Amino acid sequence: MLKNDQLDQWDRDNFFHPSTHLAQFARGEAPNRVITGGTNCHIEDRDGNKLLDAFAGLYCVNVGYGRQDIAAAIAEQARELAYYHAYVGHGTEASITLSKMIMDRAPKNMSKVYFGLSGSDANETNVKLIWYYNNILGRPEKKKIISRWRGYHGSGLMTGSLTGLELFHKKFDLPLTQVIHTEAPYYFRRDDLDQSEEQFVQHCVDELEALIEREGADTIAAFIGEPVLGTGGIVPPPAGYWQAIQAVLKKHDILLVADEVVTGFGRLGTMFGSDHYGLEPDLITIAKGLTSAYAPLSGSIVGDKMWKVLEQGTDENGPIGHGWTYSAHPIGAAAGVANLKLLDELDLIANNREVGGYLNKTMSDALAGHGNVGDVRGEGMLCAVEFVKDKDSRTFFDGADKVGPQIAGALAAQGVIGRAMPQGDILGFAPPFCLTREEADEVVGKTVKAVQQVLG
Amino acid sequence: MLKNDQLDQWDRDNFFHPSTHLAQFARGEAPNRVITGGTNCHIEDRDGNKLLDAFAGLYCVNVGYGRQDIAAAIAEQARELAYYHAYVGHGTEASITLSKMIMDRAPKNMSKVYFGLSGSDANETNVKLIWYYNNILGRPEKKKIISRWRGYHGSGLMTGSLTGLELFHKKFDLPLTQVIHTEAPYYFRRDDLDQSEEQFVQHCVDELEALIEREGADTIAAFIGEPVLGTGGIVPPPAGYWQAIQAVLKKHDILLVADEVVTGFGRLGTMFGSDHYGLEPDLITIAKGLTSAYAPLSGSIVGDKMWKVLEQGTDENGPIGHGWTYSAHPIGAAAGVANLKLLDELDLIANNREVGGYLNKTMSDALAGHGNVGDVRGEGMLCAVEFVKDKDSRTFFDGADKVGPQIAGALAAQGVIGRAMPQGDILGFAPPFCLTREEADEVVGKTVKAVQQVLG
Repeated sequence: MLKNDQLDQWDRDNFFHPSTHLAQFARGEAPNRVITGGTNCHIEDRDGNKLLDAFAGLYCVNVGYGRQDIAAAIAEQARELAYYHAYVGHGTEASITLSKMIMDRAPKNMSKVYFGLSGSDANETNVKLIWYYNNILGRPEKKKIISRWRGYHGSGLMTGSLTGLELFHKKFDLPLTQVIHTEAPYYFRRDDLDQSEEQFVQHCVDELEALIEREGADTIAAFIGEPVLGTGGIVPPPAGYWQAIQAVLKKHDILLVADEVVTGFGRLGTMFGSDHYGLEPDLITIAKGLTSAYAPLSGSIVGDKMWKVLEQGTDENGPIGHGWTYSAHPIGAAAGVANLKLLDELDLIANNREVGGYLNKTMSDALAGHGNVGDVRGEGMLCAVEFVKDKDSRTFFDGADKVGPQIAGALAAQGVIGRAMPQGDILGFAPPFCLTREEADEVVGKTVKAVQQVLG
Repeated sequence: MLKNDQLDQWDRDNFFHPSTHLAQFARGEAPNRVITGGTNCHIEDRDGNKLLDAFAGLYCVNVGYGRQDIAAAIAEQARELAYYHAYVGHGTEASITLSKMIMDRAPKNMSKVYFGLSGSDANETNVKLIWYYNNILGRPEKKKIISRWRGYHGSGLMTGSLTGLELFHKKFDLPLTQVIHTEAPYYFRRDDLDQSEEQFVQHCVDELEALIEREGADTIAAFIGEPVLGTGGIVPPPAGYWQAIQAVLKKHDILLVADEVVTGFGRLGTMFGSDHYGLEPDLITIAKGLTSAYAPLSGSIVGDKMWKVLEQGTDENGPIGHGWTYSAHPIGAAAGVANLKLLDELDLIANNREVGGYLNKTMSDALAGHGNVGDVRGEGMLCAVEFVKDKDSRTFFDGADKVGPQIAGALAAQGVIGRAMPQGDILGFAPPFCLTREEADEVVGKTVKAVQQVLG
């Protein structure tokens, strides 16, 4: 399959990889890896290694690798019509069908879907729509967006501002002033160790109320949050969090954006994370699970309340000045249709619930007692293990010791891919939904071994 | 091929189309069109219409529709490996090969390519890299970006700010404060009709110098421009413009971003617009022509000068905090490789030069004498006709009369797609590079007829 021995040099000479140490990579000090194929939960590289990918790419290959049904749909679309734009009422059978399939699956009170390519650009669209909405309603001051520390909402300028992680702000002059951050719903990392979960939820509510009071509710347009924190550490919210937060938002007429890039289309064992936690969002961001990454496609699902105002806006101002050339790209749309069909046909969300639950329980049973494991947590097919230097005092390791990355490295050396989450010593898992119990056992067994290798 | 009679209703109920009058579309007052296939310069819709697409989608289907070589490359990649991420030194044979092919074709002094999905996200990346660059160099105040009125650089929050068109700012609170605009290099629309082209270039230079003086050169990081204005009206710059502008930028240590989303990979009859006009950019934005839109893919080509500083930055700060999940997506990369090969094999840039020149000459011969045609202009396979109410006084029509859209409509009714550019009464053409002389004749002949129908 691979025809070329110069790939390594070409790679280092020409390719600017994302989230990479550019100098080390260019100098040849950091490894490269050329991926050549995959089947279900496994990927293969050009050196013949076969790895169990317990992070599904970047928690996106939800139906697993090598699905020939999706490949065939992509191939057919490419042969018939690879591209036409979706501006001014143009569409394709695939994009129209997919819009219908998405809305059939969306939580109630949602109206339409705008297609983009990535979670980042979908959140860009969301912010544009939110600002437009309040301009049409004659509230030009109501524009700030509240996000949470440790939220992940993209890597652009505005979306990287929504993201509440230092790595994405440092040296980039982010966050921009239009974005303000509030407490992360991260009970394990609460400041006051004596707080109960219930008290911590009240603390999150108090912090949010204080922020709104400080800034003025008439300056705040929206609140964005992932149902479960993803890149910030894979953290399910404490019980009652979303109900309490939503009550505050309603009181102050603040829109809710549910960023379901990770959780949408089944990752928590329900179609949407909003279903799982009883969220009633005004906008929903979708991406990864929409196509299982077989082709780039994202979306902003717009709720009824906002849609009515958008219609009013175009009646007053003409066509909406927002468009990506590749919005509703036919290849992405065809992949999305085939992917959602496969999700149903193979009943993968049910398998997700069952095996995800098994993975979480087995991981917890195996590691919760370890002296350096502070927390094992998860929901659906998401699982995380957080390491601490001292358990009783909940003292964290020094980031410079790179305990998380070391453990992820020891695990990869055994042929299993987990992810060292970027902030904290947290090993994350987000396998494809088709994970088997045997594979879950392998993930847990090898994780235990990796932890022992690094921490004893 | 089409199996469904409910598509129209599904479309109106569920699909939020870009750049569309949302209310009219939802109410069924604006047409929808479902595109089903295409060959070379023609597309077909589900009603059996066959149209000559003289705008190549959104000037992106450069090699033409229905190219089975590209479809086959996409299909093969989808079967083998539809997705793996490119973070932390990961790649695929397709993405590495494409990075090499791009750098082989890029202007001199360019170093690496970062892959995105759209022109918008590539310009987002560019701004992030520019800010990072000046932070690493210890110049935290040198951050503003100069763009030109009528420039088009995207539809996001920052990239829509770079765009200098009212439609993309209105009701969206754009431009953001980090972006400032200067004179468009649009000789036909000069304020002072007595200015020669040379005097107008000096005027553009004076305006730029005055802006830099006002803001302070130590606050200005970069200048972004398309070699030829695209969505702003398809306007080649006056002679000597780029040389004069570049001299100013060099004097004030301001980076140059060449936005080659439209012009990259041959649209002007040279591989890059930078080659055509002697630009020496620090960053180049690429998208459309990279894959001819067969799959979403964009890129930021980083020059040597910036790359050295990015390396220094990661040596000082660790891995760069920038990544899109779908950066270097294998499907896009495979499409890109096949597309660039086809461009060479069919010698399409040479055809572009020849037939593009013919199209421009024929259009000018046919319409320059018309009393309502103020300007016929173009370069390579780009051509525009600008309409005026009165030629001698260069009086424009009232926008509300929608003269441009009416003519585009009359042309479409004859089966030829041109584009009514969004600001001004300008009919734009950007056909696939495989346009034949006979097709060029058809475009010109039917345009003349459309103009006569609307304006007499």
